[in-house]
Amino acid sequence: MSDPTPVKLYDYLFSGNGYKARLAMAQLGIEVEYEFRDLVQGETRTPDFLALSPAGQIPVLVLSDGTALSESNAILCWLTEDTFLMPADKLERAQVLKWMFYEQSNIDKVLGRSRFMRTFPDFIPMLPQGSMEVLKYQGDEALKLLEATLSDRTYLVGERYSAADIAMYAYVHCAGEGDFDLGDYTAVSAWCRRVAEQPGHITIDQVPR
Amino acid sequence: MSDPTPVKLYDYLFSGNGYKARLAMAQLGIEVEYEFRDLVQGETRTPDFLALSPAGQIPVLVLSDGTALSESNAILCWLTEDTFLMPADKLERAQVLKWMFYEQSNIDKVLGRSRFMRTFPDFIPMLPQGSMEVLKYQGDEALKLLEATLSDRTYLVGERYSAADIAMYAYVHCAGEGDFDLGDYTAVSAWCRRVAEQPGHITIDQVPR
Repeated sequence: MSDPTPVKLYDYLFSGNGYKARLAMAQLGIEVEYEFRDLVQGETRTPDFLALSPAGQIPVLVLSDGTALSESNAILCWLTEDTFLMPADKLERAQVLKWMFYEQSNIDKVLGRSRFMRTFPDFIPMLPQGSMEVLKYQGDEALKLLEATLSDRTYLVGERYSAADIAMYAYVHCAGEGDFDLGDYTAVSAWCRRVAEQPGHITIDQVPR
Repeated sequence: MSDPTPVKLYDYLFSGNGYKARLAMAQLGIEVEYEFRDLVQGETRTPDFLALSPAGQIPVLVLSDGTALSESNAILCWLTEDTFLMPADKLERAQVLKWMFYEQSNIDKVLGRSRFMRTFPDFIPMLPQGSMEVLKYQGDEALKLLEATLSDRTYLVGERYSAADIAMYAYVHCAGEGDFDLGDYTAVSAWCRRVAEQPGHITIDQVPR
């Protein structure tokens, strides 16, 4: 039985997580239907969407066999398997995953959350007092680690642009919208420019065509 | 060139993340050296440890080529690749990753953090007011989603025990220590018992032998 093919992406153009899937598909030449759901308007909490994505998360990639795959980094791994965006070497693939799991905890949930909270301050129902200060501290710690990492290499894994760079770029390049100053991180900024110069690059508000 | 082999795990027996690697190695018959670092005593913030793991995280798996691999779920993927703990099917592998990324954000950082904060209340330097209440809410939301998921299946992916179950079990089975009542979640509790009955199972405070 051949693998199913991607058919449709449920997405939201503000979402760095949706951007991971869109950017990979742009660079792999994969065309799908797009349906945008405004999560701030509650469009990811409707019964039809929760049936696809029980956690109400964007993005969801629907495949030709009807599978609705969620979790942006899992979608990214599925899309890039056996392509130039995923190393063939077993250990390099583990390093790609390492950066994706790091991103999930320390970038998405910190830089991404700061950006979301600054852009939609009334949307988060339960926000412990002092959360923004903690996120600011954690975000700068994560950016310092990335700065040290990227100070002596061109890309995150194996000196080649890969899915690890896509995953990391999604919320790092727009960290300024969460009140982080990327000007303080010169190696991270230079890496952002290299990522943006890759063939087929699209910006976070673009749809592959 | 053949793949490097695992040599040593830096671990801490309280850590659910370390347990993911230990449990997989117990079930795969992989023997390594163990070095325990008490993170509450600062033993993961020493220069030698930060050189291995810049984020100061447990676990770290050292390989025969000198690689120090961090991020528990990446270690788990590397250990289980091409074994009975990782599905051969591409889409099932993506579903395993989906649960691992879900676990990273919604279980490790919620149930795991609640357990850590209740066990070592003086250790977290920056804790926004109301954090425990938010974690309690988020943790019950995650457990409800797992309960619905496991109410009509035996294991998380493909009706077979896999690395997804190991990753999820690590902090779910001990959620009680973070003030969650698993008795409220009968399908999750039954799944925990099935996981604990797998051949070669060890508990969180055990080392494979």
